[in-house]
Amino acid sequence: MTITITAFERSPDGGKGLARDTRVRWALEETDLPYEVRFVSFGAMKEPAHRRLHPFGQIPTYEEGDLALFETGAIVFHIAERHAGLLPDNADARARAVMWMFAALNTVEPPILDLQTAKFMEGDKPWAAERLPLVKDRIRHRLRELSVRLGDADWLDGAFSAGDLMMVSVLLRTRSSGILDEFPDLAAYVARGEARPAYKRAFAAQLAINASTPPAG
Amino acid sequence: MTITITAFERSPDGGKGLARDTRVRWALEETDLPYEVRFVSFGAMKEPAHRRLHPFGQIPTYEEGDLALFETGAIVFHIAERHAGLLPDNADARARAVMWMFAALNTVEPPILDLQTAKFMEGDKPWAAERLPLVKDRIRHRLRELSVRLGDADWLDGAFSAGDLMMVSVLLRTRSSGILDEFPDLAAYVARGEARPAYKRAFAAQLAINASTPPAG
Repeated sequence: MTITITAFERSPDGGKGLARDTRVRWALEETDLPYEVRFVSFGAMKEPAHRRLHPFGQIPTYEEGDLALFETGAIVFHIAERHAGLLPDNADARARAVMWMFAALNTVEPPILDLQTAKFMEGDKPWAAERLPLVKDRIRHRLRELSVRLGDADWLDGAFSAGDLMMVSVLLRTRSSGILDEFPDLAAYVARGEARPAYKRAFAAQLAINASTPPAG
Repeated sequence: MTITITAFERSPDGGKGLARDTRVRWALEETDLPYEVRFVSFGAMKEPAHRRLHPFGQIPTYEEGDLALFETGAIVFHIAERHAGLLPDNADARARAVMWMFAALNTVEPPILDLQTAKFMEGDKPWAAERLPLVKDRIRHRLRELSVRLGDADWLDGAFSAGDLMMVSVLLRTRSSGILDEFPDLAAYVARGEARPAYKRAFAAQLAINASTPPAG
């Protein structure tokens, strides 16, 4: 069955790979699955046709036969559950890989999203300059805890898994602020993710589309 | 094998059921699993012994034999995957239930957490009063989209699932601000969740502990 995902017609990051379709592309590349991409404009994302796929009017979505999914965590898990390469066979290790997916999305990413909100939605507010350090410190707090847990391991729980795929993807969003590089071990962890052939293919695929069009924001 | 979870020694909400152990208790009650609770003080949560279970120093955690998990989404999924009552049998419907778990935690909850941060961590800042309406509007934006998708259905995708358990739990956090009641269909959806016998047992169990001790914050 053909897999079709959606992605930004023009990614706001101009091809840095931070749009969430890159996470799904990465999972599809790790599992060697062919896929098609339907590009959606910012306007079309908010229209009823797209909202039938994604009630919150975002990308990516995932279609495969009669199944339509949104939410990157769910899409990556769906792929990981059905194809080898992203989840360990051992039941306990598998539960921990899923745990790291949720930790990436529900514990580590929220303060990072808060920084994006602070910059892009409240950047013109009178409190922007004074509030930004507080927001950044909340990210540092979480990254410090993550760094302690990672220790000198290559991946969060033994072999690379969907948990690392999601954590690396989330951490990549802290690079432009300089915060990632304050944690050399986490920066090296992210670099290990980026060095994977599957990530490189996913990154190149989104870059091919987004580098040719000027960034929208 | 005995299941042991951790919970606040004194929940900051004084027993309103908003601490995340209630979500796990609810899942355990829906699947009729007995469990034990170990209570952890705010100080002990940040100590190495607890951080070995939860690197971010929070509750709940879940222990079952050699398996130790943190992150509510992962714990509820682990329970749901192994015991009847929280995930449909049909593979596509199951993938959608997981999708709603991630949507609750990664799309709906972040702006709600932002309101808690605004109130409790930035409530004394000079921008607090002016910023609060922006934060609340971002919650309303998401709840409006969720309300459209729910329509006049009882649950998000047919029968009650772990996706509803998580979404109801997240939405409960918007009640005290008055925002939930601005969406009567979502308020009714939450009430349907609260009316489930398993939820009532979970709520009563946490209340029995927290009502007897004064709230810590």
